[in-house]
Amino acid sequence: MKRIADSTVRRLSVYLRFLEDSVTHGVRTISSQELARRGGTTSAQVRKDLSFFGSFGKRGLGYPAAELTASLRDILGLDREWRVIIIGAGKIGTALAQYHGFRQRGFDIIAVYDADARKIGSKWDGLVVRDIREVERDVPQELPDIAVLTVPSEEAQAVAERLVGAGIEGILNFAPVQLKLPAHITVRNVNMAMELEGLSYALTNRERSGEAQ
Amino acid sequence: MKRIADSTVRRLSVYLRFLEDSVTHGVRTISSQELARRGGTTSAQVRKDLSFFGSFGKRGLGYPAAELTASLRDILGLDREWRVIIIGAGKIGTALAQYHGFRQRGFDIIAVYDADARKIGSKWDGLVVRDIREVERDVPQELPDIAVLTVPSEEAQAVAERLVGAGIEGILNFAPVQLKLPAHITVRNVNMAMELEGLSYALTNRERSGEAQ
Repeated sequence: MKRIADSTVRRLSVYLRFLEDSVTHGVRTISSQELARRGGTTSAQVRKDLSFFGSFGKRGLGYPAAELTASLRDILGLDREWRVIIIGAGKIGTALAQYHGFRQRGFDIIAVYDADARKIGSKWDGLVVRDIREVERDVPQELPDIAVLTVPSEEAQAVAERLVGAGIEGILNFAPVQLKLPAHITVRNVNMAMELEGLSYALTNRERSGEAQ
Repeated sequence: MKRIADSTVRRLSVYLRFLEDSVTHGVRTISSQELARRGGTTSAQVRKDLSFFGSFGKRGLGYPAAELTASLRDILGLDREWRVIIIGAGKIGTALAQYHGFRQRGFDIIAVYDADARKIGSKWDGLVVRDIREVERDVPQELPDIAVLTVPSEEAQAVAERLVGAGIEGILNFAPVQLKLPAHITVRNVNMAMELEGLSYALTNRERSGEAQ
């Protein structure tokens, strides 16, 4: 199977949320038009997105909602628990740890680490903040799948390398730097200020048209 | 000038951060190699990214750091204040309001709104949470540029339409739905659980190779 573009995976996540809502409300079939409306796309795109993963639904009858929900959960790797550690017990880390959406989706935050002696040992939503120096010992034992990196920019690369050395293969990076890591490591970047800069750029440059890479 | 891809704008943000750090540390010139390393890209890509916006630096001498910093700030629309309102005084909204990176970049949070009577009137990091019903009155008077939308999914579309009706043209959307808004409205989407799902998808499907849209 081909590698699927990030934009497709994002749409699958959007479809899944809509499907779950619909199933909760007793809906049994969903048309590609309805999925397209929720996903901000066309029904042709919906059919194309889903076709990467097999054959769903019958022409003219729509998709069976519960079945498609299960398939999308399977495709997105949500039919299992993911063990997540947070590196950096700052404000973003706190908001994330308290975000119930994670656990609902099977992302279980098992540990939080920090380098600051004032934070280490403090209680944190059911967890105790650990010393980052313990990460090399803990990761091979506790086998977290994903590390959420919320450390200062200048430390992010070094910390990421330590995590990878300890065995982490997926990183959600909140530091505004591009991490350079081995190709088998999966990294996603989130940066709030950069998202706002994307808006300020777009609002400033609205007269520009056309498209360039 | 052509419309620039989001990925280019993101790299400009990364270059800018590195340049600002460098200037703070007294660096006067920066090579495209150094920018490439920080941006996780190639020096050819750096030169291409910057070439959209004019001619910077001299071949073999690198870029003058302070001058390029000023240019990137100008390109990204960061040479002015952006007035931001937050819709939804929940956990994500709170973390964002307290995030000092925003004000540093010229994003000034001027108001917070919620629909919950228990939250309206409460103090919030120097602001008082306002009733969402006041938004139609306030926006034309206070002229915020950007609304950060952190309301529940099922309310996001309706609230976004109200914001647009009141005059908002830029939305940073944290709700896991694709908003359908007029073409002149700029929307950026951020969704924590979906970022993690992108990771779980990638970790689950690593044997897949190639690329497909």
